[in-house]
Amino acid sequence: MSENKNIVNPSILSGFMELLPEDQIVFNKMKDTIRKTYESYGFIPLDTPVIEKSEVLLAKSGGDTEKQIYRFTKGENDLALRFDLTVPLARFVAQHYGELTFPFRRYHIGKAYRGERPQKGRFREFYQCDIDIVGNGSLSIINDAEIVSVIYSTFKNLGFEDFTIMINNRKLLNGLFRSLGTTNATEVMRTVDKIDKIGPDEVRKELIELGMDENAVEKLLAIIAMKGAPDSIIPELRKMGIDNDEFKTGVDELEKISECISSLGVDPKKFELNLKIARGLDYYTGTVYETFLNDYPQLGSVCSGGRYDELASNYTKQSLPGVGISIGLSRLFYQLREIGLVGKTGHATTTDLLFIPIGDTLNYTLSAAALARSEGINTEVYMNEGKLGKKFTYANNLGIPFVAAVGETEVQEGTLTVKDMRTGEQETVKKESLAEYINAKK
Amino acid sequence: MSENKNIVNPSILSGFMELLPEDQIVFNKMKDTIRKTYESYGFIPLDTPVIEKSEVLLAKSGGDTEKQIYRFTKGENDLALRFDLTVPLARFVAQHYGELTFPFRRYHIGKAYRGERPQKGRFREFYQCDIDIVGNGSLSIINDAEIVSVIYSTFKNLGFEDFTIMINNRKLLNGLFRSLGTTNATEVMRTVDKIDKIGPDEVRKELIELGMDENAVEKLLAIIAMKGAPDSIIPELRKMGIDNDEFKTGVDELEKISECISSLGVDPKKFELNLKIARGLDYYTGTVYETFLNDYPQLGSVCSGGRYDELASNYTKQSLPGVGISIGLSRLFYQLREIGLVGKTGHATTTDLLFIPIGDTLNYTLSAAALARSEGINTEVYMNEGKLGKKFTYANNLGIPFVAAVGETEVQEGTLTVKDMRTGEQETVKKESLAEYINAKK
Repeated sequence: MSENKNIVNPSILSGFMELLPEDQIVFNKMKDTIRKTYESYGFIPLDTPVIEKSEVLLAKSGGDTEKQIYRFTKGENDLALRFDLTVPLARFVAQHYGELTFPFRRYHIGKAYRGERPQKGRFREFYQCDIDIVGNGSLSIINDAEIVSVIYSTFKNLGFEDFTIMINNRKLLNGLFRSLGTTNATEVMRTVDKIDKIGPDEVRKELIELGMDENAVEKLLAIIAMKGAPDSIIPELRKMGIDNDEFKTGVDELEKISECISSLGVDPKKFELNLKIARGLDYYTGTVYETFLNDYPQLGSVCSGGRYDELASNYTKQSLPGVGISIGLSRLFYQLREIGLVGKTGHATTTDLLFIPIGDTLNYTLSAAALARSEGINTEVYMNEGKLGKKFTYANNLGIPFVAAVGETEVQEGTLTVKDMRTGEQETVKKESLAEYINAKK
Repeated sequence: MSENKNIVNPSILSGFMELLPEDQIVFNKMKDTIRKTYESYGFIPLDTPVIEKSEVLLAKSGGDTEKQIYRFTKGENDLALRFDLTVPLARFVAQHYGELTFPFRRYHIGKAYRGERPQKGRFREFYQCDIDIVGNGSLSIINDAEIVSVIYSTFKNLGFEDFTIMINNRKLLNGLFRSLGTTNATEVMRTVDKIDKIGPDEVRKELIELGMDENAVEKLLAIIAMKGAPDSIIPELRKMGIDNDEFKTGVDELEKISECISSLGVDPKKFELNLKIARGLDYYTGTVYETFLNDYPQLGSVCSGGRYDELASNYTKQSLPGVGISIGLSRLFYQLREIGLVGKTGHATTTDLLFIPIGDTLNYTLSAAALARSEGINTEVYMNEGKLGKKFTYANNLGIPFVAAVGETEVQEGTLTVKDMRTGEQETVKKESLAEYINAKK
């Protein structure tokens, strides 16, 4: 190692997120909370390969996906990195159809890849936290209501107090478009979906360009401006006299979901219908979800998803309807850190207790540490040479809350002297009572 | 979705592992246990990008690595998927040197990629579970002892009873080779490392081909055959009169580690010196570790690692000595499943309790489920139409231990009737006492 060698500049690719310990710990805590919440609803873990066959991943796609995907060859294989967790789910369910129990409720927390143009808060490698409920042939609308409850519990458990889960229904929108004489519902949907970005005037212009007459456009803009509690919206929708079966089914579905909200334990104040929500993706066919932090609307939707009729039509002729949502955790974490809502904890470790052996006390210290660990205290022993001050600085820098310097006295008396680094208080306790003492104070 | 479309065969690439839920749950449990153990020793989480710059990942390498790596271009970038977690650690520590507190104790549990020839139990995408302790300029040998303790706790916590952690020391081996007149210690090390694969006769032959004389070879073979408790080995090594400083330092280091074993809470019966352990990788410079399941020696070492002098010499001139180990979890899981030690739990979900609403009891059921969840019970509600028998079959197929069918009587009386699916017993409890009841029985 002593020879002269070239030093390569240590760096990562632009557009990739890498966290220092203090942030990583917060990130992991959020990820753990999401996982635990998903599991509390009986979602089953899935972990698929990051690399798949290109022909499988790109069975349906085109446009941006194809441009952004990381695709390459290795030997004779044409490979690609997954760009979401939905396509791998579709492939998995089709592939293992006979081995799964339906409805198949799965969660998947993992990385996905898109070679997007680098921009603030957009990452080329990002964590998605997805749940989906996939039915075999049919899937009751009550599942769509449960999804609202999962979103609610997840954001509550993440520590958010002020957020709103908004839903809409694509059948309602499609039926509405048709009743207004639209022939190109897909294009109208895309245009409506842009309303927050481009504003109602621009939407009006584009809709007229799509061939809608002005009256119809005004009516449409009035309806999609509706938003609020189901009690106020649903009767109004029924009163409009829109004679389209798809529209009516959409309203019925919204009503059915709304009826379950309180029983599901969701605070009704955090739940709204919002008729302009369309979701860009064309595979949604019913309920669509978006979630907003009320104090930070600029973040956009922090949890979105919807109902689809056919999850896996590219891979199987089985009819597999489903409903699901996704949290883009890397992006959410980045945004929350930018606005100062997460981070700066002062803890760059999850260690609870640092032992510092002084003099010939190593063996006593090591066994005290083993004991503490066995009682659930994350424990380190400072193993290296150096001045005592430097060792306390180590604890300070990492934000370790308790430090026990171990000298001859402690060994003779079978005690430990613990300093609470937050208050400076110091107390001597019996070796056997240490865990109890720390657990009470931490 | 009703149009005729091409169906792409849903499949994954060969050499990639994908688990069905029953196995995935076991896999995740192992992963969680490893993580929790690593954290109990104060290791800090790190999560680096899977894709890095090729020039960084391949700063030092060649041979198999270069052939096996997944490398490709995207735009102007030359990219590669990481093939281990050590190179990214080295890059990270060099890049963030000024922002880290040393000794830097990190764990990293993540996927790595090698396009190896597919063979049984070898995967192209695999989980590594690594810990390393990286010092700034120096790192006490006591850290090497602690690593033994981490291996011990990890395998205990994974539920293994009969395993042996074996250590050796590269200084001891290097010194020994030199004292026996070897000029090419690296080649001799590689040859010794193969002894379990090719046998002592073949090793003898190769060592003679490398220019060692026959007496030296016999002496070497006798020494590397030594294995057992430190008490029996270390005095013998000292008596041999090998007058080489590196050899003596190696023996001292082994002795120092051995002295700490009991204090560290490690069962001395599970700890041995084994002088033939060399580890193929050339960057180890001191202690080397291997771990064997005594009933399944055919698995090879299930946890290996060692001490290195310079972690990041490709990226920085800072001296960063370290010591670490790695568990190849995908391979380990596969092997354990093959020999029947893990898997077949009968649980394809982590759900504790399934509610089945009968008749008009949905709202009561949903609120009972929300209550159960809030008390830590993983709870599902069967939301879909169908016969009661089919719903119980769902619970049976997934291995859900408790099922509560909810009828009008339960709603009127504020009770729940819970069936223990394992025993068939059924009991009616107050809605508020449900969580307590389940927790007591699960």
